[in-house]
Amino acid sequence: MLQSKLFYKSSREKSSDTESVSHDLLTRAGFVDQLSAGVYTFLPLGLKVIQKIEAIVRKNMQDSPVSSQELLMPVLHPKDNWEKTGRWETLDILFKLKGAGDKEFALGPTHEEVVSPLAKKMILSYKDLPYSIFQIQTKFRNELRAKSGILRTREFLMKDLYSFHTNQEDLDIYYAKVAKTYKNIFNQLGIGKQTYETLASGGSFSKYSHEFQTVTSAGEDIIYVCKKCRFAINKEIKTDDSECPNCKTGDYEEKKAVEVGNIFKLGTKYSLPFDLKFKDKDGSDKDVIMGCFGLGISRAMGAIVEVNHDDRGVIWPRNVAPFMVHIIEIKGKSKVNTTAKKIYQDLQKKDVEVLYDDRQDKSAGEKFADADLIGIPYRIVVSDKTLEKNSVEVKERSKNQVKLVKISQLAKFLKL
Amino acid sequence: MLQSKLFYKSSREKSSDTESVSHDLLTRAGFVDQLSAGVYTFLPLGLKVIQKIEAIVRKNMQDSPVSSQELLMPVLHPKDNWEKTGRWETLDILFKLKGAGDKEFALGPTHEEVVSPLAKKMILSYKDLPYSIFQIQTKFRNELRAKSGILRTREFLMKDLYSFHTNQEDLDIYYAKVAKTYKNIFNQLGIGKQTYETLASGGSFSKYSHEFQTVTSAGEDIIYVCKKCRFAINKEIKTDDSECPNCKTGDYEEKKAVEVGNIFKLGTKYSLPFDLKFKDKDGSDKDVIMGCFGLGISRAMGAIVEVNHDDRGVIWPRNVAPFMVHIIEIKGKSKVNTTAKKIYQDLQKKDVEVLYDDRQDKSAGEKFADADLIGIPYRIVVSDKTLEKNSVEVKERSKNQVKLVKISQLAKFLKL
Repeated sequence: MLQSKLFYKSSREKSSDTESVSHDLLTRAGFVDQLSAGVYTFLPLGLKVIQKIEAIVRKNMQDSPVSSQELLMPVLHPKDNWEKTGRWETLDILFKLKGAGDKEFALGPTHEEVVSPLAKKMILSYKDLPYSIFQIQTKFRNELRAKSGILRTREFLMKDLYSFHTNQEDLDIYYAKVAKTYKNIFNQLGIGKQTYETLASGGSFSKYSHEFQTVTSAGEDIIYVCKKCRFAINKEIKTDDSECPNCKTGDYEEKKAVEVGNIFKLGTKYSLPFDLKFKDKDGSDKDVIMGCFGLGISRAMGAIVEVNHDDRGVIWPRNVAPFMVHIIEIKGKSKVNTTAKKIYQDLQKKDVEVLYDDRQDKSAGEKFADADLIGIPYRIVVSDKTLEKNSVEVKERSKNQVKLVKISQLAKFLKL
Repeated sequence: MLQSKLFYKSSREKSSDTESVSHDLLTRAGFVDQLSAGVYTFLPLGLKVIQKIEAIVRKNMQDSPVSSQELLMPVLHPKDNWEKTGRWETLDILFKLKGAGDKEFALGPTHEEVVSPLAKKMILSYKDLPYSIFQIQTKFRNELRAKSGILRTREFLMKDLYSFHTNQEDLDIYYAKVAKTYKNIFNQLGIGKQTYETLASGGSFSKYSHEFQTVTSAGEDIIYVCKKCRFAINKEIKTDDSECPNCKTGDYEEKKAVEVGNIFKLGTKYSLPFDLKFKDKDGSDKDVIMGCFGLGISRAMGAIVEVNHDDRGVIWPRNVAPFMVHIIEIKGKSKVNTTAKKIYQDLQKKDVEVLYDDRQDKSAGEKFADADLIGIPYRIVVSDKTLEKNSVEVKERSKNQVKLVKISQLAKFLKL
């Protein structure tokens, strides 16, 4: 992609009402644009990151032992479905609207009210179970205070998975598989080290649920992390015991964190109101046992930036970087331009994603500042000076040292 | 994918209130599930088709001379934006809702009201133009009568592209490029022959626009097609002239059709209310000239089925088929099962997408009926009888003849 053609404008000035580092950096670097409080456009740079996160999550949901099938449920949910579970009245973040003929709808903040009656059409017998389906879809929450940029929004992208089982033990086994896969995902997204599987409230049907909490000062949740064994617990359910329930030491640290995932044993909470049963081996009808497993796609993007940045900009982990290489052309003799172009084309032929700063009206300083702000893993500088040695200057965004690399050795150096 | 594990149930019975062939077939074959009038879930089989259509459209928008950048704009649009264009009051299909603090939003049915102020942040000078951006996104229309299955819904997937130009001539050139690319897309989707570029009303800012209309009895539009030169014109703007404006003959046919795409020269209709200007070479400020280009993703899926089916089910064009090969195992000696499994695994290793009907509780007749209903391009039958000759039976869904093919020759026969 030629940077002169990229649909973005960077801004050098820190926003005055900085809500979070990720909001400031993603807005200034041209990844997102705020339309309204808690409502964002993902600009081309930002959508590239979102699509990479989606691909990692999708692959892990399909190919791991989670082995789930993707579908796509609607945003518009009939009021009837939400009245059946009582949540039409009790869920305060529900966006409600009227359609033609005064028919009322909710904008889906989660999909138990849709997936349960759908599963009822598919699940007839114990032979149909276990089952699991997931979607990557836009969700809506009528938050009183939308804040912290894309960490807490009114409209957001989420992966939600629902599983269906004949008994509690089967759900328990599946729950553990998903938890393990989530850890793999957060490692692949570059936030594994800072993300804690955290014991949290289970609501009315299960003693506990688990949240995946990424530690950041922009987080709105408080978690306690055991220094010794990494066991973490949400403040909401922390008792006064000073002892870690896991390793029996008492060395807890209080940390602010943002919830990037949560997994929940629903039991029969939603199968009961929707009469979701299966015929068991003995011919009797039994209630289906359900689990639900959420992962915030756009929120994960914010968390990645919270964890991976310095005071100059974002430092994208490779797996989710919008581009792998950023070529910076420093205005000079015509050979600079032809060489930069050639490197750009050669790398693209090797299927490397390259952003090429070909802008003629920007100074070297502006280009370097933009490159640091955008945060692409490799920066390659082509200038009169580097070409004197038939070389380019290569710098990793996450490191300080700059290396002069012969152009003929570049592909090898980048391990392509 | 093992059919025993697929999240679907087929139905043999034609729905009594059949609105369109595509609705009947897609529902019965387990591609979609209706949640409410005009609101659908895309089940795993259906989402696979949607994703293939999306990939074809995306590639054509990015890599063709259309050369557009993908972004993702929000569903929630602030009332202010729609009041600026006057469409808050005049667009009767607008879904409206109130959020926290009584802030009012529309659910986006189209995105001129969002993209125009966004472009204002990016476009400063003539050097920034031309520009074009597109998204593939869920749209909402509060239709009084939602009907014909996924052909006319309240919630649907659409590709919308917006282009920005310094002058009318540049827009005209781009408009022609998009029109040509649309024809390529509809050819690739398997509805090229039945889809007509149709002259239609241009609204207040342009004499004409063009619709891409796929001829089907389920369509709600009426178009006139010249038998001689394929020139087509929407009934809404057809005058009483019996002469084709293009080839000057008078041999028109009246046809029902569904609009799968439309392209529109907006001119300054939306740049004026949002004060979208650019600084020209001479230093003066000029209005940006805009174009908009829509293509219905989910509607195209319906149109594909309207055009590609017989009385037994869907006949998917290869480019959009959910799977390429459907293996049918006919219960027999154990060798049938092991051979079917082996063929399934071998084809998958060659990256062929295979649905394998491994269900043990279904008769051969039921399996054949399901295969015809689902409509995968190649059906491969493995039975005691075929194995006597070390062969399988291969049938293309679109053809009648059945061929016995040696298992050792199968990959070659399928041209893999």
